[in-house]
Amino acid sequence: MPGRPSYPKPARVLNFASGPSTLPEEVLRDAQEDLWSFRGSGIGILEHHHRGPHFQELLAELQADCRELAALPEDFEVLLLHGGARLQFAMLPANLLPADGTADYLDTGFFAGMALEEARHYGGVHVAASSRNEDFRRLPSPGETRFSDSPVYVHFTSNNTACGTQLREEPTPPGGSWLACDASSDLFTRPLAWERYGLVYSGSHKNLGTAGLALVMARRALLEAPVRELPAFLRYATHLAHGSCFNTPPVFAVYVMGRMLRWMLAQGGLDALARRGRARADFLYGVIDGSDFYSGLVHPDSRSRVNVTFRTPHPELDARFLAEAEKGGMVGLTGYRRVGGLRANLYNALPAAACETLAEFMREFERRYG
Amino acid sequence: MPGRPSYPKPARVLNFASGPSTLPEEVLRDAQEDLWSFRGSGIGILEHHHRGPHFQELLAELQADCRELAALPEDFEVLLLHGGARLQFAMLPANLLPADGTADYLDTGFFAGMALEEARHYGGVHVAASSRNEDFRRLPSPGETRFSDSPVYVHFTSNNTACGTQLREEPTPPGGSWLACDASSDLFTRPLAWERYGLVYSGSHKNLGTAGLALVMARRALLEAPVRELPAFLRYATHLAHGSCFNTPPVFAVYVMGRMLRWMLAQGGLDALARRGRARADFLYGVIDGSDFYSGLVHPDSRSRVNVTFRTPHPELDARFLAEAEKGGMVGLTGYRRVGGLRANLYNALPAAACETLAEFMREFERRYG
Repeated sequence: MPGRPSYPKPARVLNFASGPSTLPEEVLRDAQEDLWSFRGSGIGILEHHHRGPHFQELLAELQADCRELAALPEDFEVLLLHGGARLQFAMLPANLLPADGTADYLDTGFFAGMALEEARHYGGVHVAASSRNEDFRRLPSPGETRFSDSPVYVHFTSNNTACGTQLREEPTPPGGSWLACDASSDLFTRPLAWERYGLVYSGSHKNLGTAGLALVMARRALLEAPVRELPAFLRYATHLAHGSCFNTPPVFAVYVMGRMLRWMLAQGGLDALARRGRARADFLYGVIDGSDFYSGLVHPDSRSRVNVTFRTPHPELDARFLAEAEKGGMVGLTGYRRVGGLRANLYNALPAAACETLAEFMREFERRYG
Repeated sequence: MPGRPSYPKPARVLNFASGPSTLPEEVLRDAQEDLWSFRGSGIGILEHHHRGPHFQELLAELQADCRELAALPEDFEVLLLHGGARLQFAMLPANLLPADGTADYLDTGFFAGMALEEARHYGGVHVAASSRNEDFRRLPSPGETRFSDSPVYVHFTSNNTACGTQLREEPTPPGGSWLACDASSDLFTRPLAWERYGLVYSGSHKNLGTAGLALVMARRALLEAPVRELPAFLRYATHLAHGSCFNTPPVFAVYVMGRMLRWMLAQGGLDALARRGRARADFLYGVIDGSDFYSGLVHPDSRSRVNVTFRTPHPELDARFLAEAEKGGMVGLTGYRRVGGLRANLYNALPAAACETLAEFMREFERRYG
């Protein structure tokens, strides 16, 4: 293979944004080349017909890499769907919650709440646990969770990006039921206990590349048996039957997801990514806990290893923190608009030295303003 | 402004594909740079947060350019939605066709037929005209069209990509009704008679850039008044209220659409594009009609200026045509899978000399095999 051509490289900043978020520089460099000509075809990746051999080969590779990375059981299928995770809030109950059935939802964050509101359009919703009246600053414990008698499924959000909370492990659904999970912000940061799941979905703009796509991994039997009549586009079975090419897929988002899956495999897979992610988060929480100046926003037992939320003693100092961080080449540290404060989002692609650079800045900022 | 850095440029082929399809080389070169760092930010376009200033500026420019290019009346809004045109097949009737109302559909092609099937999930559908039993080889005339008594809207497909037919001008909807149009394959190849329209939609992977997005231009009053309860994601009103950022938009498809709109404005706008498109199509149809070897697939009055369909005397020669064209650096000339034959797709971005190159090849092929 010829050496990589040298692209001009304007300086890049450290991007801690919550998603869309930073991508590995090697993925971006590949994308630059492939926009012009994909695999020597003389046609860029945006311009290849989705039913042609190049795109179909890419799709097959993506499916295989996804199965390998996720250690996906044989009875699960991989779907690539339009609309991000938000359309899944509706497609899941539309396909799988009968009008006379009940689904249990864990109400643990802003997006968890939006998911359960969409489900109410299709069937019964039972809130099995909620930390809404505590502003989602902690996650309800298993002991506080009250499932309904026979839920079709139990829906939870594995990681709540806005507040910065994350379940340490999956809930145990009651017998006959299965887990449905919005894993948009921590998918592929750790292994999954597939035996508990029926369906997992994730938007594509955090650990999976660029916005505009949802990855759905679900048991084949569920996907094949919608509980009601629906327009073809809204049926999982349609997309399964057409190999995720019922209509033209978002080709570039699929391409970037494929590159990200391969990149994560090259990093050592989920065990290695989980170890690295845990070390990075522990390091930053250590800086926060070792200081009287910074404080975390959520209960220590509920802390996310992906979205580290914290604040200084005053909102004005938070604003100054953001401004000075930006001058120092660090962006994306603003807290979620309905939460406030500061937030460092540690997706897989964040460069290795980013947390050290941020910690150094935090200590220096504390020395000057603490 | 500094000079454009020189990227390596592997040879590109002439791509006549039906979509995803060829893009202007200057748009691809800009995209290569902007993947790495967008507008000097040190953050690539895939990595910018969608609520941040850079992406919001891009969205505002796109909206303004779209209004200018389309000459859009003030009471129309521009929405950017997930899911391509196919989700619009369902969203349109879900939002605007009451269960006890009737919508009229012109059944003029494969995709027109899929649109009307999705509408049946929501309300009454009256097929006002159909050329299905003629394999869609011509378009029904206004005299053959029988509207229902008081349709909510009249849906038509302005250009049928698969067969290669195109309406010369918009139908006249009956009083009190409005046109809804799937313009996915000829939007922005000519001006639109906005006074007849309520809503126009288009997928993004032909004249608008890369797949994964739908552009919807519609009267504000329609978007604001859904006729039934729907999940938030499926309501036009939701996306209107959130400036097309209800959830994370497909940022790269939005970026490329923005660049394509600006590129079309720089080409002279819709009148100039229409003149050029007509000249290119007339030229190719002239080659077909001036030969006893090639024949067109559709009635001359119904011919598309975007998708020129034709064939040689034998399917085996069609296959040889495709193979030899590819050797000559021309791809994407295969007919639609359910139609067969050959097809040259002449979207706006096809390089100016492409039709001459193809015509030369066609004449040479005829000399050798005719």
